Amino acid sequence: MQEGIEVRVQEAMREIARGVNEIIGIEYIQSLVERYYKSGETFSIKAGFDPTAPDLHLGHTVLIQKMATFQKHGAIVTFLIGDYTAMIGDPTGKSETRKPLTREQVLQNAQSYQDQVFKILDPQKTVIRFNSEWLEKLGTAGMIELTAKFSVARMLERDDFEKRYKSQTPISLVEFIYPLLQGYDSVALESDVEFGGTDQKFNLLMGRHLQRSYGLKKEQSVLMVPILEGLDGVQKMSKSLGNYIGVTEEPNTMYAKVLSVSDELMWRYYELLSAKSLDEIHKLQEDVKSGNYHPKKAKEDLALEITTRYHSEQDALQAKEEFDKVFARDEIPSEMPELGVTGEIWICKAMVEGGISPSTSQARRDIQAGSVKINQTKVEDINQQLGHGEHIIQVGKRKFLRLIVK
Amino acid sequence: MQEGIEVRVQEAMREIARGVNEIIGIEYIQSLVERYYKSGETFSIKAGFDPTAPDLHLGHTVLIQKMATFQKHGAIVTFLIGDYTAMIGDPTGKSETRKPLTREQVLQNAQSYQDQVFKILDPQKTVIRFNSEWLEKLGTAGMIELTAKFSVARMLERDDFEKRYKSQTPISLVEFIYPLLQGYDSVALESDVEFGGTDQKFNLLMGRHLQRSYGLKKEQSVLMVPILEGLDGVQKMSKSLGNYIGVTEEPNTMYAKVLSVSDELMWRYYELLSAKSLDEIHKLQEDVKSGNYHPKKAKEDLALEITTRYHSEQDALQAKEEFDKVFARDEIPSEMPELGVTGEIWICKAMVEGGISPSTSQARRDIQAGSVKINQTKVEDINQQLGHGEHIIQVGKRKFLRLIVK
Repeated sequence: MQEGIEVRVQEAMREIARGVNEIIGIEYIQSLVERYYKSGETFSIKAGFDPTAPDLHLGHTVLIQKMATFQKHGAIVTFLIGDYTAMIGDPTGKSETRKPLTREQVLQNAQSYQDQVFKILDPQKTVIRFNSEWLEKLGTAGMIELTAKFSVARMLERDDFEKRYKSQTPISLVEFIYPLLQGYDSVALESDVEFGGTDQKFNLLMGRHLQRSYGLKKEQSVLMVPILEGLDGVQKMSKSLGNYIGVTEEPNTMYAKVLSVSDELMWRYYELLSAKSLDEIHKLQEDVKSGNYHPKKAKEDLALEITTRYHSEQDALQAKEEFDKVFARDEIPSEMPELGVTGEIWICKAMVEGGISPSTSQARRDIQAGSVKINQTKVEDINQQLGHGEHIIQVGKRKFLRLIVK
Repeated sequence: MQEGIEVRVQEAMREIARGVNEIIGIEYIQSLVERYYKSGETFSIKAGFDPTAPDLHLGHTVLIQKMATFQKHGAIVTFLIGDYTAMIGDPTGKSETRKPLTREQVLQNAQSYQDQVFKILDPQKTVIRFNSEWLEKLGTAGMIELTAKFSVARMLERDDFEKRYKSQTPISLVEFIYPLLQGYDSVALESDVEFGGTDQKFNLLMGRHLQRSYGLKKEQSVLMVPILEGLDGVQKMSKSLGNYIGVTEEPNTMYAKVLSVSDELMWRYYELLSAKSLDEIHKLQEDVKSGNYHPKKAKEDLALEITTRYHSEQDALQAKEEFDKVFARDEIPSEMPELGVTGEIWICKAMVEGGISPSTSQARRDIQAGSVKINQTKVEDINQQLGHGEHIIQVGKRKFLRLIVK
């Protein structure tokens, strides 16, 4: 029995550590999991969410899936909505976009969050909380007490503050207050573990520091998940960069977006987003390497898994079917004749020189008949000039030319 | 009529500027005084006081007398008691002495302040306010808004902060909050002029800055009074240094303390504490220089003026009489024989060597008879050894010796 628990705890810790960037206080987490398996006593994990932007994308789900893993091993998730500062808006008045939220908007956005996260989290083991509950009560005296818990120099050690201070980029004093408020959330919630991105390390550690300062009998552990790369494989996934897969996107879009990533990024997504075990994923990689498994098939499987998670298996299969149809129709061969020119070139001239049209008058007629495309878009103008860049010119179904204008 | 006002305003401004260290926004003050003389409309001046230490000394009265001057020219004084932070105490828990005050203690101390300041201020033109009135209401949201009004870099420009930051002496974040709260008092009070010591410049300017930030239609002027030197003429007058004259001290003590200052310091006290006009004071100085007036007489006049202010003329005259009697009895000549020795010396031996006793046995008998004093204190022990320093040894009424032990 004792041995059985030990094995389960070890397995849990392996799952917990998977794909995680850094854990501070891992021994404490292990003791909580152990306690759960011995006595059934749960523990409390926390992550904060911004109610101004309740549209989750897969970048967020790395963290949420990790919390779901914890739920299997005794954790009650506090899904913390930072409504208090959102209802204040931007007190510096500099941000046009950070308009104060009303309580109605907050509740609406909280509902939207729930609809999304309960596709991943177990609702029976999740509590939604709003930090206005305790921050409002802090009051002037509480804020004075809170600011007495931290020094200016230590605040200026935070990377971005240090850089801005050194480069004389103004830091409003209120920016020193936000990490304290976030840390105070951990005091109020008496959380055991806080989750966040690696870019949140300073603020996450603040919770630990403040729990100690306020005389709590515990210090939360901190678990940092990596920042998920967007579809481009380079930048952080973010709505404003447009390189994201939204949790509420249509099945077709979601499926197609997963298929669009590079093979390298696909394995990263497998590690951070798939429910497959690490062993299964390694096996897949071996099979692809040895040629027993086509990488496109691996990508399709991942796209199906992710689309199924946020919609249904049926939706996912339909999305695949739809995609295959469109893709087959518009397929562009990876090999085709190339033509390099310097300066602008007239479309009809390029078609003749590239060998996909016998004459410029034939080219004209083909364009007028609507059977010529550039980069999969029908050409409308027979006089079109093509400038700097790469253009895939297609006549009918089968004739392709890669035109490179320097 | 118009011309009459102009003259009165000019006179008022001369009185206002007297002995003042620095005024920021003097044009605004002049316009307020002018308005008062034209329309009778009053304006609001403010100074903050710490309710934890309501014992005023003459160092404080420089500022309070300046406020009294303003009252003659249209100002309503807000005597602001900073009760809010006093009731919180030291939130860093570092200071043993800054125990939180109860509301009862605050009110008691406020009463004590009133008893003292109404010897200088006109009660009809004075309002006592407590900043808990508006700071309590600020709340968490108000504090967030307040901290958004100032930058970290500008806060670190304050002299003491800059030094401490550079020398890596910790600055608690709460220390950045106090100047903001003080400044916010000026927002809440909509004060026209704030008074403080020169060491308060940064905090006084904060009120100006915040009034602007909060969209008030005015910016308070700032008037800084010099720091009064204590009885030693070197250090700032302060209770903890013991070099002070307390407003509530007994007439005898007060009178004697004024008489103890150097001639140079006497003129400084004349300028900052006397109700005499600058012209009268210059005349006095001329008379002393030309020998028409004894400097001791000038000092007595000042001691009488100050003692009368805080007690009564009768008390002051009695104090003078008492002092003269004691002084006459214990008068020590400024010229007397000197004896220099190295190492400790036995009192009787010193008396013989210094020529004020024919023999050590006579010296012994004089000590036993109680007629020998060292520094005006009766010698009790015939075996007393005298160590390093200067000792005035006196036998009977007339025999003196200055003993210098190296």
